[in-house]
Formats: sequence, structure tokens, C-alpha cells
Amino acid sequence: MSLLVAIRGWTPDAWIERLRRLAPEHVVLDAREAFDPETVTHAAVWKPEPGLLGRLPNLRAVFNLGAGVDALLADPKLPDVPIARIVDPDLTRRMTEWVTMNVLVHHRQVRRHAENQRRTVWGTLAQPAARDVTVGVMGLGVLGRDAAEVLIRLGFHVTGWSRSPRDIDGIECFAGTYGLGPFLERTDILVVLLPLTDDTRGILDRDLFARLKRDNHMGGPVLINAGRGGLQVETDILAALDEGVLAAASLDVFESEPLSPTSPLWAHPRVTITPHCAADSDAEALARVIVAAVRREEAGEGIAAETLVDRTAGY
Amino acid sequence: MSLLVAIRGWTPDAWIERLRRLAPEHVVLDAREAFDPETVTHAAVWKPEPGLLGRLPNLRAVFNLGAGVDALLADPKLPDVPIARIVDPDLTRRMTEWVTMNVLVHHRQVRRHAENQRRTVWGTLAQPAARDVTVGVMGLGVLGRDAAEVLIRLGFHVTGWSRSPRDIDGIECFAGTYGLGPFLERTDILVVLLPLTDDTRGILDRDLFARLKRDNHMGGPVLINAGRGGLQVETDILAALDEGVLAAASLDVFESEPLSPTSPLWAHPRVTITPHCAADSDAEALARVIVAAVRREEAGEGIAAETLVDRTAGY
Repeated sequence: MSLLVAIRGWTPDAWIERLRRLAPEHVVLDAREAFDPETVTHAAVWKPEPGLLGRLPNLRAVFNLGAGVDALLADPKLPDVPIARIVDPDLTRRMTEWVTMNVLVHHRQVRRHAENQRRTVWGTLAQPAARDVTVGVMGLGVLGRDAAEVLIRLGFHVTGWSRSPRDIDGIECFAGTYGLGPFLERTDILVVLLPLTDDTRGILDRDLFARLKRDNHMGGPVLINAGRGGLQVETDILAALDEGVLAAASLDVFESEPLSPTSPLWAHPRVTITPHCAADSDAEALARVIVAAVRREEAGEGIAAETLVDRTAGY
Repeated sequence: MSLLVAIRGWTPDAWIERLRRLAPEHVVLDAREAFDPETVTHAAVWKPEPGLLGRLPNLRAVFNLGAGVDALLADPKLPDVPIARIVDPDLTRRMTEWVTMNVLVHHRQVRRHAENQRRTVWGTLAQPAARDVTVGVMGLGVLGRDAAEVLIRLGFHVTGWSRSPRDIDGIECFAGTYGLGPFLERTDILVVLLPLTDDTRGILDRDLFARLKRDNHMGGPVLINAGRGGLQVETDILAALDEGVLAAASLDVFESEPLSPTSPLWAHPRVTITPHCAADSDAEALARVIVAAVRREEAGEGIAAETLVDRTAGY
């Protein structure tokens, strides 16, 4: 029984060290080195090389090191074993911090206050109450619901949009293609926490931005995306900002990461960039969760239902 | 029965217009014009001229247009009538917004991320979980308790300090002179929502800053003051920032307001200034609350207990 670590995009060394230390009873294999595919029963992966998992005849389960499974599910040779989405227990809390902070920074007009400070101007700005501002949350999974809960506590009018209808206390919910228009036309601040699927790829485009509510104290609608970079069309975001269709954008994810040094997003005065760290995991905590999940599966207890990926839905 | 409007520091015209419109059954007098002191039964005030209220023989109640009553109580001729603190029902919510935003902005290292963006650097920063960060709230009145509640929901470790001992769910509470040291030495982010009294004037000085917890991901302790400007010693804040005793400060209030254009606070790279707008009232909502309170008093129902100022305590 061996645990294969196949990580691309980050350096896997620290992960291999952590897993060997936390699960000394396991053989922890490094996918960059030679190994016997027959021995691999479990795999801890992040964007593994397509085809790799299909070459492991005794694979019993895959543990994905994060919430996003789009890269993994795009592998046509993906074997038919359970896939668990392993997330830091703190991931939701961290994402809610990041979303709440960005909503408040736009609502409370931090950019304008900073400009007044730079010019030594004691300038009070008209500031509506949170109840007069609508935050529309796209994606009502665990992350979207938790952020919505805090935003409701802060007094915002919170609406939500999801693929299939939801009924959540305190949130005006819209669903599907027909619900998208009414949802967007009410939205001052759009918070995106959608999964990346065939249906959602490129959904954040010029057409969508043009349907958001126009008039508010922020100078127009604001986009906050901490979902996936593939949801957004960056040339459309830039055009919408420059044409006054969007007032500002806070982006933690990008079409291609790291964001290219030549992207005009970096220098745009109304774009706030963070380097895909909104819900960065505590690596040690995450490694402990993986080891516990591997041990549970080996003991015949299977994969915890709330972590199981639904391949048909794509998330 | 007349309502006298005595406002200094802001232009009273809009207030007089609002009160005349909302309370057409009352004579609304403007303290800047001639009026018969005998006719005045109620006064709506903000920092009224000392001695003015003492010259009104038939005064029944004073309505203070905001939370701070320090200027009012400093009047040696203040007559012995009930004083109500009139606050926008939204004041608490607005203050909690401002406090939450500032705590998150420091915790999530917005200044460093912005510097990385300016330099086109995709730079992940080590980011502890909220549970590993202690927010110390000085002042556990309505405002302090509400902000603490949201910060606890976000996962922060929240402690509190007040003059007299309190017992509040989820908050590690300290009180009085003896409690101040243990409170400060645990605090990463100091949120100040104290009233201004003889005991608290100038409390935010060099000695206090030096007792805060030294090491954290923000480069040291952070001061967030939205209480009163008189609580802080601004030369000490500047010295503490420059000596590395404080990492940063978010200030909404100042020793003298508006903040002088010559103050070095404006240009300090680690000071964030807002112009005493953290909990700016919605003027129309506030005027409605005043009219309702005047009508209640006239109808013999007195002053709502939760709005009544305790002169002995000074707040």
C-alpha cells in the first residue's frame, strides 16, 4: 500500500516531507521519481499529468489537494475510483475573510478615502447603509453560503445564484439561465465562488457585466472573483472597467497563473490583485487531513460523503 | 413647547430644515438667531456653546446628536435635566463595518499585497489563520460588543477591556488598571471604542503601545481607533510607528478635527485616515429618531433608558 504524491504547479518536496513525517507507516512515493505503478493504492494530487492516474492498476482513491477539480476531471484517462476533495478545515473561514474584506473595501470607498488622504483632504463621502447595497453571490456551495452568512450579519442585502434552485434563510435565491438576468440586475457587488465547469467557463464576460445594476455609491458594479480564473474573460474585464461598465474588480484568480507580468491588469488603477491566496491552506493542517482520509479509506470506511467529487456535475 | 437646535462644528441648516419638516407640530428654533429662552422645552444639540443650556429655565430634556457626550458634560452650567444620546439605529452597524474592514485589511496584509501588485510581483505571503490572531477591543459598550461578535464569527481570538468587569460570551474579558497589562500583552490588533472621560483621555500613548504583543505577521501591533480623538496622543503614535513599536494605525478620529493639513499623520505610509466617518449617520434617519424621542418625552413617557446618559460615569 503506497501513497503517490503527484503535484504540478507547486514544488512537491515540502508535501512529500510532511506526508512521510505524518504517516510513517506508509510508503510515500514521489511521482517525479521511478516507482512501481502496481504498488500504488492511493494518490494525493494537484493537477497531475494527464494519463498518470490511469496507469495505476491498483489505485483505490484519489485525494485532490484543494477545492478545484476541473484540471483533474479533464483527464480522459481518469480511472473510475472515488475522488475526494481535501480541503483545510480553515479554507472556508479564510475565503470568507477575503470576500468580506473585499466587499467592505469597495462598499466603504477605501480607494476614494485613500485618494483624499494622499491629497490631504478631509473629505466626507456619502455612504449608504449596507442594507441599501446588494451583494450577489454566484455559487452557493459551502464557500458561498458561509460568506453570505457573514455579509447578512453585517447588514447587506444578499442574493444568490446557483445552477440548481436553492432555498437558504436570509438569501434571495435565483437559479439557472432564467434566474441569471433578475439576479444580475439587482447586484451592486458581484461575488463569484462558482466551480469551473463546461457551463461556467468564461461566464464572467462583457454581456454579464453589462447586465449588472448601474447606479450606486461605488460608481457602478464591482466584480470580486475568488472562484476560478477560467470563469473570467480578462480582456472583457479590462474593457468593462475602461468603458465604465464595471467600477472596480478584486481578483484572486486568473485565466493563467501566475498572472503574466505583461497583463494590463497589474497596473490598472481599479483592479486589486492577490496571488490566488484568498483561501491559502495551512499546509501542515491540510497534510494531517489527507493522512486521516487515507487511513479511513484503508480501514474500509470509504470516503467522507461531503468530500466526494460528483464527476457528472463536474465539481 | 419649542425645540431648540444648537449645533456647532457642522452647519445646522439641513438639520433645522429636516426637523421642521418631520415635526410640523413643533416650533423649531435656531440657536444662531434670537429666541425667547422661556419657550424652550427641548434641545437637540451637538457641542452647544457652554452656558447656553443653563439659560433655558423650562428645559425638560436634551437630545445629543451622536454617541459622544464629552463636550456636553464639560459644560459647568449644564442644567439637571435628562440627556439622551440619540444615535442612528444604523450607527452600530456602520461602526462594525468600519472596524471589521480595518481588522481584515491589516490581518490580510493588504498593504504588502498592494506593494507586490505595484511591482508586478506574484508574491504569496505567509498568512496565519484568524484563530492565531488576537484582536483586543477596548470599550465593551454596544459598539465594542457588536464589533467583537462579528470578529468572533470570522474566527479571530477576541479579548476585551473595560473600566468595570464584564462577562461576555466568547470574549476573554479584562477590566480596570490591573487588567490592562495582561490585556495589552496578548493583543495583535488593538480596536479602540472607548468613551472619552477624565480616565481615558490620552490613554493611547507610548507606554500603552510598548505593552502590546510584539511579534506577528503584520510586523508588530496595529492600532485601530474609532472612539474619540482625545483618547490618543498623536505625537506618540508617530514616534511608535517610526520606532517599530506600532506596525500601522487606522484612525477615524483625531485630537483636533478636521485634522490639520500640517499633521505628519496624513503622509505617513503606515497610517490610514478616514475623516471621522466610521459610523456617519444617515441624517434623515437620525432626525426621525430625534422627533420620535421628543414626542415620547412630551407625551410623559420620559427618555428611553438605553439612550440615557450617566453623568457620573461621564458617558
